[in-house]
Amino acid sequence: MAIAIDKVEREFLEYIKKIAAYHEALSVIYWDLRTGAPKKGVEQRSEVIGMLSSEVFKMGTSKEMAHFIAVLSAKDNQAQLSEVTKRMVEECKKNYERNKKIPMDEYKEFVILQSKSTNAWEEAREKADFSLFQPYLEQIVAYTRKFIEYWGYERYKYNTLLDMYEPGMTVDVLDQVFAQLRERIVPLVKQISMSPHQPDTSFLYKYFPKEKQKQFSLDILKQLGYDFDAGRLDETVHPFATGINRGDVRVTTRYDEYDFRGAIFGTIHECGHAIYEQNISSTLTGTLLDDGTSMGIHESQSLFFENFIGRNKHFWEKQYSLLQKYAPEQFTGVSLESFYRAINESKPSLIRVEADELTYPLHIMIRYEIEKSLFDGELEVKDLPKVWNDKYEEYLGIVPDNDGVGVLQDVHWSDGSFGYFPSYALGYMYAAQIKQTILRDLPHYDQLLASGNIEPIKKWLNERIHQYGKMKKPLDILKETTGEGLNAQYLISYLEDKYRDVYKLN
Amino acid sequence: MAIAIDKVEREFLEYIKKIAAYHEALSVIYWDLRTGAPKKGVEQRSEVIGMLSSEVFKMGTSKEMAHFIAVLSAKDNQAQLSEVTKRMVEECKKNYERNKKIPMDEYKEFVILQSKSTNAWEEAREKADFSLFQPYLEQIVAYTRKFIEYWGYERYKYNTLLDMYEPGMTVDVLDQVFAQLRERIVPLVKQISMSPHQPDTSFLYKYFPKEKQKQFSLDILKQLGYDFDAGRLDETVHPFATGINRGDVRVTTRYDEYDFRGAIFGTIHECGHAIYEQNISSTLTGTLLDDGTSMGIHESQSLFFENFIGRNKHFWEKQYSLLQKYAPEQFTGVSLESFYRAINESKPSLIRVEADELTYPLHIMIRYEIEKSLFDGELEVKDLPKVWNDKYEEYLGIVPDNDGVGVLQDVHWSDGSFGYFPSYALGYMYAAQIKQTILRDLPHYDQLLASGNIEPIKKWLNERIHQYGKMKKPLDILKETTGEGLNAQYLISYLEDKYRDVYKLN
Repeated sequence: MAIAIDKVEREFLEYIKKIAAYHEALSVIYWDLRTGAPKKGVEQRSEVIGMLSSEVFKMGTSKEMAHFIAVLSAKDNQAQLSEVTKRMVEECKKNYERNKKIPMDEYKEFVILQSKSTNAWEEAREKADFSLFQPYLEQIVAYTRKFIEYWGYERYKYNTLLDMYEPGMTVDVLDQVFAQLRERIVPLVKQISMSPHQPDTSFLYKYFPKEKQKQFSLDILKQLGYDFDAGRLDETVHPFATGINRGDVRVTTRYDEYDFRGAIFGTIHECGHAIYEQNISSTLTGTLLDDGTSMGIHESQSLFFENFIGRNKHFWEKQYSLLQKYAPEQFTGVSLESFYRAINESKPSLIRVEADELTYPLHIMIRYEIEKSLFDGELEVKDLPKVWNDKYEEYLGIVPDNDGVGVLQDVHWSDGSFGYFPSYALGYMYAAQIKQTILRDLPHYDQLLASGNIEPIKKWLNERIHQYGKMKKPLDILKETTGEGLNAQYLISYLEDKYRDVYKLN
Repeated sequence: MAIAIDKVEREFLEYIKKIAAYHEALSVIYWDLRTGAPKKGVEQRSEVIGMLSSEVFKMGTSKEMAHFIAVLSAKDNQAQLSEVTKRMVEECKKNYERNKKIPMDEYKEFVILQSKSTNAWEEAREKADFSLFQPYLEQIVAYTRKFIEYWGYERYKYNTLLDMYEPGMTVDVLDQVFAQLRERIVPLVKQISMSPHQPDTSFLYKYFPKEKQKQFSLDILKQLGYDFDAGRLDETVHPFATGINRGDVRVTTRYDEYDFRGAIFGTIHECGHAIYEQNISSTLTGTLLDDGTSMGIHESQSLFFENFIGRNKHFWEKQYSLLQKYAPEQFTGVSLESFYRAINESKPSLIRVEADELTYPLHIMIRYEIEKSLFDGELEVKDLPKVWNDKYEEYLGIVPDNDGVGVLQDVHWSDGSFGYFPSYALGYMYAAQIKQTILRDLPHYDQLLASGNIEPIKKWLNERIHQYGKMKKPLDILKETTGEGLNAQYLISYLEDKYRDVYKLN
């Protein structure tokens, strides 16, 4: 019995367009909630989110979807499909199978648990009392362990979780790269803490009015190639970027009037995310492939902008005078060199999101090791606070005073987002590896930054990474772009060179 | 065969909740589009709007809906339903019948035509060239005439259009009240134009920085009882209020730095709309009844706030000194009396949205008479410019230089919103009638304004009008609140008293 494949393909594309439309509506709603939606409307808005999300879930696991997948992923039919459709089918299939394998009532119980658990976590963090969170986290972990059994796994259970955020990434690879990082970063952190050449950072904490920080942020965004006809900058509590569609990719930041660094580097970070999504090919609009290909690759772009552009000395050769225009008094008598060293100050700290670029990977490794032990080792939830503190002592030489600034600091575990943390470190390693590759094509990289000509760098990233959206998988992008698989050496060399310079270790 | 009515009712309520959720998502999207969504994202956003709107349309005309309506509006079953459900069914039935009577392909053609026609209108208005718009408007009118045949009508075809915006309103009633208004307002406008006591308005046009206007607007909103935990103020090109849900009712305004009146009175106007929706009973959330009961009643609330509070002399006894604080230089040497007379200046003008409160009803009457003739008279689209100009000459004594500031000025006809205009005048008459009723309960109305104590007035409106949302029909609300049907005399007396005072006619 012959099926008209082109007809099924057309129907499938229409079906996905509708799912994409719901996604887009949800994105607008989430952005709105986080940038100033009035509080009394939130409860009802949550109902709307629930309604739209469950519609998306239903469409992704419906009989129609099963039919589309069956027909369009049949080997005989694949040849007739466009490359984009093939990739869409692959993604839909993965999503379908993942969602179908969990019994519906267990999934519903889990969703309810997630929301309760996040509430419990909030209270526990505020009161720095792990015992309030522990019973919820135990359930979250138990469900996750059960789900892994439903989903299946290869070698390590944790691999299945990693794959959700970074398709193709495994414990074997991470163990190897994290060992390399640890071996070199831990001693480096100790070394610089003993350097007699500590940067003077006192000027960082002077009053820098919010409105001026905002104008500088807008200015920098423009210079980095962020397209304001396809985006906007707003204020929020926890900064983020969101691609509502490729013509509407918004960034947010927050302003601390006594430490401008959060706003500036936060804005540049989100700009990296946003430039990724603004430059995804328009042919992918409405296909669900118009998104970053993985958390790690997405983070590689934000960290590339934040660290390899924004914290590069040469970048400030051009931008420091601009910054001085916005806050003339603050920087009087502060040389470019002093400024550069101050913004790159590194010291062990307790809170991940406030960590500098040298110590940041250590925060991630701690979480990685804990997560791995939760799913493939013997670690139990009740032992988390002790393990956490021991690892902070071992890697960073400091111990949290209480669990609020320790094991309770991150939201991720409260809703079961295990496997997410490694993306942050992966993104960082990808970024360093990409930076090294760019140097082959743009050997005058530093001069480009010094002259404020970011365009060739942005174009390079657009062509090799951004345009593809989810059409290529993360490790394929890395391989095709840099010519090799994940290699931690680039990040290690970068950090060693940079921090030896900043702390005058030679 | 027995049907479990309570089960059907529950399913119906769930079904409507879902429609309401789509409505809410659409409201967020519309608000976003009009307050700063980046332009490159708009095309894709329109797809999303189309997708969600057609879902709402489908759900409103589906077989399930037909079933709900059949079961729940059956006489035998009505007794078992809550009052809210009964009213919901009534509204759904009206909507269902209206939408089902038009053949689907004609409806689709019309939707496409609407969008083309609005584009053509924009260009025509810009070029002041009616001929560019005429062929589209002719089609829009032709479709509307055909739709009226499908829908059916009583006495006048135009009644069917009026009923869409103001359920229960008829040509007979409007002819009568408009005749009364015309008879008294037209001579009054002439009289005051000849008064030797013209207000000095020169100070109105001085520089008033946007930021200061905004702060004053925020201040006034608070004093009027607008709840900022359930709303926010933003800037836009064409100001509006939108009730996303009763806990999130947003207002917008625009700032002209050389004429503060637009921002201030615009804000107060939208505040009236918003306070209506912020105070609809929470029991109506998710029922589709949590909205203003009609365009006219909605407009009565905005005009009540704008004119009967905001343009009242006593209101400024308290607020003028506040205004002076925000713009001290502008008002130096301008007495409260001079200020009051200036903001109430009246003179014939061409543009409806810029008209003062005395001449405004004349702009509406002109449109009403034209619309009536288009559907129940002999008027054809090609003759609109001439008829328009003749009527402006007759009612206001002035003739547009070109059609851009004449027959092309309003967007309404371009998408077929015939029957909408009368709501503006109805709202005005309702407001005057309500004001007169309030005086019985709050005889010290003016003193309340003078002392800045708006709360009792707001509470009065909350209790008698706002809380009911769509539970009561517009003419029932008017009757129950004021004890009589529509009576134009209250507006006439108000305008005569006020303008005789402002222009010192006695």
